[in-house]
Amino acid sequence: MLQLESQPYRTRIPQSTKNAILVIGGAEDKVHGREILHTFFGRAGGSEARIAIIPSASREPAIIGERYYSIFMEMGGAEAKVLDIREREHSEHPYILEYIQNCTGVFLTGGDQLRLCGLLADTPLIEKLRMRVHSGDLTLAGTSAGAAIMGYHMIAGGGSGESPNRSLVDMATGLAIIPEVIVDQHFHNRNRMGRLMSAIASHPDRIGIGIDEDTCALFEIDGVLQVMGKGTVTVIDPGKMSYTNHAHIGATDPISLHDLRIHILSYGDRYHLHQRQILPPQVPLA
Amino acid sequence: MLQLESQPYRTRIPQSTKNAILVIGGAEDKVHGREILHTFFGRAGGSEARIAIIPSASREPAIIGERYYSIFMEMGGAEAKVLDIREREHSEHPYILEYIQNCTGVFLTGGDQLRLCGLLADTPLIEKLRMRVHSGDLTLAGTSAGAAIMGYHMIAGGGSGESPNRSLVDMATGLAIIPEVIVDQHFHNRNRMGRLMSAIASHPDRIGIGIDEDTCALFEIDGVLQVMGKGTVTVIDPGKMSYTNHAHIGATDPISLHDLRIHILSYGDRYHLHQRQILPPQVPLA
Repeated sequence: MLQLESQPYRTRIPQSTKNAILVIGGAEDKVHGREILHTFFGRAGGSEARIAIIPSASREPAIIGERYYSIFMEMGGAEAKVLDIREREHSEHPYILEYIQNCTGVFLTGGDQLRLCGLLADTPLIEKLRMRVHSGDLTLAGTSAGAAIMGYHMIAGGGSGESPNRSLVDMATGLAIIPEVIVDQHFHNRNRMGRLMSAIASHPDRIGIGIDEDTCALFEIDGVLQVMGKGTVTVIDPGKMSYTNHAHIGATDPISLHDLRIHILSYGDRYHLHQRQILPPQVPLA
Repeated sequence: MLQLESQPYRTRIPQSTKNAILVIGGAEDKVHGREILHTFFGRAGGSEARIAIIPSASREPAIIGERYYSIFMEMGGAEAKVLDIREREHSEHPYILEYIQNCTGVFLTGGDQLRLCGLLADTPLIEKLRMRVHSGDLTLAGTSAGAAIMGYHMIAGGGSGESPNRSLVDMATGLAIIPEVIVDQHFHNRNRMGRLMSAIASHPDRIGIGIDEDTCALFEIDGVLQVMGKGTVTVIDPGKMSYTNHAHIGATDPISLHDLRIHILSYGDRYHLHQRQILPPQVPLA
């Protein structure tokens, strides 16, 4: 077993200005170092950033929108706007579509992921956003509910404290920014391993990504994920799963899952989503 | 991915009268079907069973001892005795040693695993018990605290709701009945995946076994584990773990664990502890 030498691990990650997707497990530091939000800000262009804040997951969109607005303006962004979309029709407004076309970063706040998808799914806004993200033309971040919507399949809710079973997780359709993953957030904090495993049992062609609070899975456009923040990112890879009873049991029966490959990743760890492989840590270039 | 045909799975497990080790995740059914306790009773000899109940983990040993005594006598056992060991010296008493030598089954109740080990570790009683279990001469069951003590390394306590980290689990030395495992109980019920992973990070030469409530990992003497009861048994196999930062981080830093192999096993599933392989289900012989 490889034991890497101890190193000042906070310096492992080389800075980059490339566009990326930041999937944040909720409760990210908004007061002190704000490392995750700073990284989003930097990737979105830093002093040249024009940021769209979409607070539509929240039931208090004005308050939460204003909070992120202040943070990004304090960091010295050129511009930030809160796109306070409260009706599906709002997302067709030319002003909003134009800002999504011209901004350099989009931030999706927390709240209720079903509400966020209800407002944004299949709108011209999300089509344009997805296209710009996929072409590496824009940096996108989502925290908590804003993280949950990243996959094609989305965890809408569920429980903990039970053996994995079908009734432990409620699935819905997400915004398919990173279609191959199923994201869960507040992951170890809210003991969600059982529900993510239950989700993966029903969609074994996907990869489960469980993100702890104040922790970020930063996806480069080439599919490489890198971990930032104070917790872990859990990868559940069912690619070599040899058996599940999922299709043959009742809703509350315990689920069998044989031969899962699981990685617990912490700060600086890297994982290639398409190759399904851990990558060696990046050594600072300086 | 293999999808086995649905079958009446409660009939999958052939009956056996061979001696075994039953590791029970706590809160086993004591009132209705009592399948797990019935299986222990059958493996211990059924109507010819002479059972020793050791309630020493509990702070109310008389009450809990009496409860199991009634259950096993109701089932029709030839004899049951509560060995109410409250001091280390009690375990050297000739009456007790003789009963351990002549009984056909031993049942360890729940309570506090540190208390149980404090009373039994390195006593003539436990030496004799371990020898008889290993030679297939006796059936042993332990539930909750009585399950926790099965490994050489034992989880004495810990928390949940955090990223895996060294301070999430308190380790101690167990009674080494099945030295190669680290057992955790009330597993999904109390959200203990994080603490068992943290335990495995510190002892990657062991296999983590997490057992849900009213669920039993029944170990045959040849090292084959079979699942009974209403929940799951989680196997964490770090045999091909490619990296952990465990030795290089502070007590509360998040732990990396790369390339864990994990199985969630439910009723009838079988796993070979020494080969580290899932086995095909047993088909009823009739």
